[in-house]
Amino acid sequence: MRAFWAELLGTFCLVFFAVGSAVYGIDTIGFVGVAFAFGLVLLALAYAIGPISGCHVNPAVTLGALLAGRIGAGAAVQYWIAQFIGGILGAALIKFMTTGGDVTDQTGALGANDYGATVNLGGALVIETALTFLLVFTVLAVTGKKGATPVAGAAIGLVLAVIHLVGIPLTGTSVNPARSLGPALFAGGAPLEHLWVFIVAPLVGGLLAAVVQPLLYGRERTPVAENV
Amino acid sequence: MRAFWAELLGTFCLVFFAVGSAVYGIDTIGFVGVAFAFGLVLLALAYAIGPISGCHVNPAVTLGALLAGRIGAGAAVQYWIAQFIGGILGAALIKFMTTGGDVTDQTGALGANDYGATVNLGGALVIETALTFLLVFTVLAVTGKKGATPVAGAAIGLVLAVIHLVGIPLTGTSVNPARSLGPALFAGGAPLEHLWVFIVAPLVGGLLAAVVQPLLYGRERTPVAENV
Amino acid sequence: MRAFWAELLGTFCLVFFAVGSAVYGIDTIGFVGVAFAFGLVLLALAYAIGPISGCHVNPAVTLGALLAGRIGAGAAVQYWIAQFIGGILGAALIKFMTTGGDVTDQTGALGANDYGATVNLGGALVIETALTFLLVFTVLAVTGKKGATPVAGAAIGLVLAVIHLVGIPLTGTSVNPARSLGPALFAGGAPLEHLWVFIVAPLVGGLLAAVVQPLLYGRERTPVAENV
Amino acid sequence: MRAFWAELLGTFCLVFFAVGSAVYGIDTIGFVGVAFAFGLVLLALAYAIGPISGCHVNPAVTLGALLAGRIGAGAAVQYWIAQFIGGILGAALIKFMTTGGDVTDQTGALGANDYGATVNLGGALVIETALTFLLVFTVLAVTGKKGATPVAGAAIGLVLAVIHLVGIPLTGTSVNPARSLGPALFAGGAPLEHLWVFIVAPLVGGLLAAVVQPLLYGRERTPVAENV
Repeated sequence: MRAFWAELLGTFCLVFFAVGSAVYGIDTIGFVGVAFAFGLVLLALAYAIGPISGCHVNPAVTLGALLAGRIGAGAAVQYWIAQFIGGILGAALIKFMTTGGDVTDQTGALGANDYGATVNLGGALVIETALTFLLVFTVLAVTGKKGATPVAGAAIGLVLAVIHLVGIPLTGTSVNPARSLGPALFAGGAPLEHLWVFIVAPLVGGLLAAVVQPLLYGRERTPVAENV
Repeated sequence: MRAFWAELLGTFCLVFFAVGSAVYGIDTIGFVGVAFAFGLVLLALAYAIGPISGCHVNPAVTLGALLAGRIGAGAAVQYWIAQFIGGILGAALIKFMTTGGDVTDQTGALGANDYGATVNLGGALVIETALTFLLVFTVLAVTGKKGATPVAGAAIGLVLAVIHLVGIPLTGTSVNPARSLGPALFAGGAPLEHLWVFIVAPLVGGLLAAVVQPLLYGRERTPVAENV
Repeated sequence: MRAFWAELLGTFCLVFFAVGSAVYGIDTIGFVGVAFAFGLVLLALAYAIGPISGCHVNPAVTLGALLAGRIGAGAAVQYWIAQFIGGILGAALIKFMTTGGDVTDQTGALGANDYGATVNLGGALVIETALTFLLVFTVLAVTGKKGATPVAGAAIGLVLAVIHLVGIPLTGTSVNPARSLGPALFAGGAPLEHLWVFIVAPLVGGLLAAVVQPLLYGRERTPVAENV
Repeated sequence: MRAFWAELLGTFCLVFFAVGSAVYGIDTIGFVGVAFAFGLVLLALAYAIGPISGCHVNPAVTLGALLAGRIGAGAAVQYWIAQFIGGILGAALIKFMTTGGDVTDQTGALGANDYGATVNLGGALVIETALTFLLVFTVLAVTGKKGATPVAGAAIGLVLAVIHLVGIPLTGTSVNPARSLGPALFAGGAPLEHLWVFIVAPLVGGLLAAVVQPLLYGRERTPVAENV
């Protein structure tokens, strides 16, 4: 159960800190600041909860790990539940700050992902799939036996920063269904109607990564989640 | 006594360089520049004084280390004294630059923390507690036996950068009573009246981290402070 | 063949993500954001495909590795083909986003390199040669036997970020013929006419690095590409 | 002699790339971009030439290493000569870009350091001394026996980034006499008259670091420069 709580806590932190940085500060820290908030909080979490759960904090990463044979189905389901609960709790605390804390929501939609303003539906599906592919491919590569490195967490965090530099101007960047669900629930409206895009495309990207990474590296079974 | 001097020097550097970057340059480097100043100076200090004192440079981190059994009460008291003295000296040198050095204070309050402009008291307490929790949880996780990594100092420094990306628009980000005391003493007024918020909330955050981290990792006793 | 596919995938990702960040977002993330997109995607790729192909993803790096005796001629030709195909595919997907995806091209030329606006032809040749020299010198130094380090991928990625901080205001920064070819093909016009500059100068820079690095380190033969 | 050439090449690169980023681009990349250019080029050089010369690329660092007993007097003199030559050559190439290359000098003084606009003479002496102290203290700490870490080069590079975030708004940040000499020679005028400040204060800072670091760590003799 320790991995369950680590994933819940980690996804809570990812959403509260990274999405929160956009909600409270996008007018002052800009897209670059928000991109680094996502990247650096994931980098820190990779080292802070990685030893417990592998620090997926993202259902698309967990899908990739499952399909690549790194974790079992039972663990994956536990991870998914923990991630969605953590994401909703993170969004709830952001929401509290904008109500009980008198903070202005500078995104107008609690940092929820959406498309339409700068990219159409097809483009959103393509970009979210491609962005998630790179994230999950990187995770599977640097946490496998052949690519293992003490710098793995840095590579994973910093690739999430790039992914946000590319994707924030388009969809706000999801690449993580749990990151999208919480804010969409509280924002309602278009983000909630379009939520399926930010669930389906990241999962497709994770699936593609789980196909391609073993082709390059050879298939392996690494017990990334020993604490389930 | 070497740990005492390392903590004093480290906290002096944290305040002079990171708070100083805001005082001299927030109009030109922005919140993102200040956030990286905090993060990268802590990253450097983690490697530069970490081998001597563990580089707490923050009473909330020391509280967490004490409660998690990483250091003893005598060492903790030494650390706290060193940190507050170092922070006051750092603020004094910033003050000298704005008077003897003819530098304009671009923050208007010597970089002191406060609330009221963009977040109310309740929100400030919540955000400072949450931000400090992530900092101290990360420190305890990556410096413990199970999570130890050569990249620990980078993770700690970079999580402080995220914490500032999130918190600067709200309270200016304290997460460190010694960082808040010095500037508040020289600024006086509201920052000094509200100083208690930036002492209490970080300590609560550190306490929470010291409760949660051992639940995930198991309790351990790591001699992070061997030079006291 | 695994190295071939790794180089193709890597160069595709470099172009799609890093050049893409400029095309979709240079108005909002600025030159600093684009510079970090280049640097951090290369950092991630260095760890994600480095164990397979050494992560050249750049014909000038491959030329340097060939001349420094790190890979053979047959492998180099394979790498070059893979890199140019990957770069063209990356640019094609960027192009698709601006047509099928309704995304505005904020660079006006699909992120292609060019000179004339802020630097003349001679200056462009000099700067691209110098910038590529530093990139290839760093790669050869940190992947050789004497300079090997687990942080090699971080050094390589982050030096590419600096190189872009310096060069974006001048030529947009190529230092990589495969990064320049794809966007120039789709942009046509001046970028296509001037493409030779961004093929010749980077190769000269790579050649210089392959001469200088062994003078400092001594000549060595490191099997960076064991999967050809 | 390999260390001599490494220091010459390294200081050339530091000046050409980092000072050059300001000259060509400070209007577009801002102080934050320039600060990262300095930090990340030093980070890369630390790994790229560190194994040959220890990557001082700065007379104040060499003074600190000499006083702390890390290198001998003969080697130090060699290093100083190499650093000043490298710095002048770097500035010469920046100058060529602004003349032969038709590039506008956005700093108006070839990126030379100066004081007077935002800080007076006394303040400039204090800030340059303090900034250099942190740089040299960090270098001595992380390259000594007790503090040695594979992340040393990252810590050194990133602390230089902080140092620039703090100091660019004041003096443009020297902390390195060789970085200041070259641009001042080509700029002439006030920067050349005030050059002594950016030679004296960094050397004082390096001296202080060489006194304090051994007090905390104990005195040691590390052969950082084995290739002289």
